[in-house]
Amino acid sequence: MSDAPDLRLHGFFRSSTSYRVRVALNLKGLVYDQTTYVLRKGEHRGEDYLAVNPQGLVPTLETDQGMIAQSLAIIEWLDETHPEPAFLPDDAWSRARVRGLAQMIALDVHPINNLRVLFYLRDQFGADDDAQTAWFHHWVNQAFSALEKRLANDKETGAFCHGNMPGLADICLASQVVNNRRFGVDIAPYPTLKRIYNACMALPAFQDALPENQPDAA
Amino acid sequence: MSDAPDLRLHGFFRSSTSYRVRVALNLKGLVYDQTTYVLRKGEHRGEDYLAVNPQGLVPTLETDQGMIAQSLAIIEWLDETHPEPAFLPDDAWSRARVRGLAQMIALDVHPINNLRVLFYLRDQFGADDDAQTAWFHHWVNQAFSALEKRLANDKETGAFCHGNMPGLADICLASQVVNNRRFGVDIAPYPTLKRIYNACMALPAFQDALPENQPDAA
Repeated sequence: MSDAPDLRLHGFFRSSTSYRVRVALNLKGLVYDQTTYVLRKGEHRGEDYLAVNPQGLVPTLETDQGMIAQSLAIIEWLDETHPEPAFLPDDAWSRARVRGLAQMIALDVHPINNLRVLFYLRDQFGADDDAQTAWFHHWVNQAFSALEKRLANDKETGAFCHGNMPGLADICLASQVVNNRRFGVDIAPYPTLKRIYNACMALPAFQDALPENQPDAA
Repeated sequence: MSDAPDLRLHGFFRSSTSYRVRVALNLKGLVYDQTTYVLRKGEHRGEDYLAVNPQGLVPTLETDQGMIAQSLAIIEWLDETHPEPAFLPDDAWSRARVRGLAQMIALDVHPINNLRVLFYLRDQFGADDDAQTAWFHHWVNQAFSALEKRLANDKETGAFCHGNMPGLADICLASQVVNNRRFGVDIAPYPTLKRIYNACMALPAFQDALPENQPDAA
């Protein structure tokens, strides 16, 4: 018998999608090991990691059944295999709401603002730091404006995105706000998002997952 | 009593995410109405549609309970409320595989290649048609290379991405291959993807959903 955890997160302290999975693991009270890759050095494009994940993107969750790629798929798997506390509501209608809110960030902000895209902009279009920052702000502000309207107006919004317990949408929201720190995006125009983010950050699961609290933090 | 369907899809014939939802509705055997918006004219940014979807992105599914945004959230809602035929396998491990495969396209290709991003590249970086095409190809080929490896090697792959029935991953794969036609991406380097795409296209649900078969096709 071994005391080693059954779960190993392959990720990077500054990766926003790795942050999501760290929060999810923490909320479920699961212990896990980490293997980390320095993205700016391209370590996630090396043979070792490509054998784990042919896409060469972090994170991947290593389980006793095998590897799971894609942060949202990992989080839904964690929720299905460890139901408490739930990341999604009980009824289909509410689940659609929460998944839709989460996807406004997970699909319509993060992939466009990912490091590999910023590198392509720099290399192919000569985008300097200012142009990259403007790009990053643009996609965040487009989604955050709409998300603020949704969350401020929907009766389902509570202390968190859906009711009074954190779930999938809060994990995605918090990961984006944390990621925004690197580009100085102002959250003041989004009072509801700010309020929910602060509610997340009052919880150890979200605090402990922060980049600066990881073993590979520079 | 009215014979009008309870479902109305707000979308656009050429929109890849609208295509996904049309396929899903067809596979479930559901009848639906459509309201369409010409994206190049910015009709999805008009007041009428912003009242339906504050994000101003298609598609939105109008139901008798209200509006659902985000194609993946819509498809999972359809699957939960109309279980047959299932878009996801029964066990959590397989569901994670299918969601992960779907997200390799839905997160890591489509949002980066969306029209609004190509417009931004043109307006802010002067990207001409060739530069936009190179951008589009780059992100498709990155994901398709990895997806081909996964699907060619995984024992769970069958006639479709997971076994012998089409599901969530097939819907996303087919939507991307259809979208690729506009930029001439060659599918020959991806024989497994090509085989699965052809299996999808042998089904009326995928055929009937094609852009050219929609009422708003130019």
